[in-house]
Amino acid sequence: LPGKKVLIVYAHQEPKSLNGSLKNVTVEELSKQGCSVTVSDLYAMQFEPRATRNDIVGCLHNSEKFNYGVEVREAYKRGDLSSDVIEEQKKVQEADLLIFQFPLYWLSMPAIMKGWMDRVLVEGFAHQFPNCYNSGYLKNKLALFSFTTGGSQEMYTKGGISGDIRYALWPMQHGIMHYCGVKVLAPHICFAPESVSEEERKEMLLAWAQRLKTLWKEKPIDCSPEWYFK
Amino acid sequence: LPGKKVLIVYAHQEPKSLNGSLKNVTVEELSKQGCSVTVSDLYAMQFEPRATRNDIVGCLHNSEKFNYGVEVREAYKRGDLSSDVIEEQKKVQEADLLIFQFPLYWLSMPAIMKGWMDRVLVEGFAHQFPNCYNSGYLKNKLALFSFTTGGSQEMYTKGGISGDIRYALWPMQHGIMHYCGVKVLAPHICFAPESVSEEERKEMLLAWAQRLKTLWKEKPIDCSPEWYFK
Repeated sequence: LPGKKVLIVYAHQEPKSLNGSLKNVTVEELSKQGCSVTVSDLYAMQFEPRATRNDIVGCLHNSEKFNYGVEVREAYKRGDLSSDVIEEQKKVQEADLLIFQFPLYWLSMPAIMKGWMDRVLVEGFAHQFPNCYNSGYLKNKLALFSFTTGGSQEMYTKGGISGDIRYALWPMQHGIMHYCGVKVLAPHICFAPESVSEEERKEMLLAWAQRLKTLWKEKPIDCSPEWYFK
Repeated sequence: LPGKKVLIVYAHQEPKSLNGSLKNVTVEELSKQGCSVTVSDLYAMQFEPRATRNDIVGCLHNSEKFNYGVEVREAYKRGDLSSDVIEEQKKVQEADLLIFQFPLYWLSMPAIMKGWMDRVLVEGFAHQFPNCYNSGYLKNKLALFSFTTGGSQEMYTKGGISGDIRYALWPMQHGIMHYCGVKVLAPHICFAPESVSEEERKEMLLAWAQRLKTLWKEKPIDCSPEWYFK
């Protein structure tokens, strides 16, 4: 949609990977629609995943006993978070839609992306209990998890050895995005791209480009336990 | 049990935290039993969570298109993984029991610990499809997830806003440990230690010390979907 702002948080080491191509397709398709698209290329940025004292500029609220959650909440209020975190928060603040593009590692995000969640979505900025879930501070935004898997689609079904893929989505979509008030669009999953032909990988890219054409008409999923565990 | 080897993978920034105290209690109690205990203190080690080309020493298998999973699998075979990863793999190999001690961040591990999983549990070392789950390469080991939460116990129940805490355990216990063949003991959860009195925190430490006394008699949980989602 013209005028919409999109942030792609992208975690793959190789630009020529399918994840890299999916990210490129997103930039191209959404730009063509007139959206303004920003990419946080986490590996290229050498994004810091560790939650440490370095995230607070200057003095600590309590230097006797370091409490990361308290310190970043206080530093956020004072404008004293480290510049890389502030930079990402600005991108989130401006965005109407967050797209997370990554390969599934261990039924979850790669650590570098988990670190983005841990460090950027600070209390006071993204949420502040009881302002969470439907009243989280990012409540007018959308998020979409777009990822590739190692295993095949059958492995990620209810009776499959890795269980329904929706089980793995619970901490990411519900525990993180929904907690911050973000509405979640259906995930986009490319199963086992390394086990299929070049032709099929091209079809995966086309299918994603196709979905993006009508993305703004999509309704968010019902982010309740029933969606995940029925 | 005398002679048993235990690896504690510990992720907290502050030695004086409850997580720090829980870790100390584990070291003391298990040492007293005659176990040999090793601690990987991830923040103190400044453990690298990012999965990058730096994990492979020397030349790449395919430098035209970097594939992390393939490269670390091949580097493992050649003995060419980076020294910090090899060091952790040795500790895992020697251990009978792995204890993960951490504060729950976003219904999951802190990024620094997720990075330990991403980088240490390499294909060929910990698993190699179809050698996974009951035939994973770490199949004679036990694991235990011991963590603290921000929210109260009621929030992490089936009807609570964060859902049954077992939903959050699925990717960690089943997706990672069980995949590698590790049998999982019941998790140890200290709910909302920051919201209770000093007295209650002391009771939490005592309860953990008490559990450790009979830990070697415990039976692993049945790591099936029913345990998590009944």
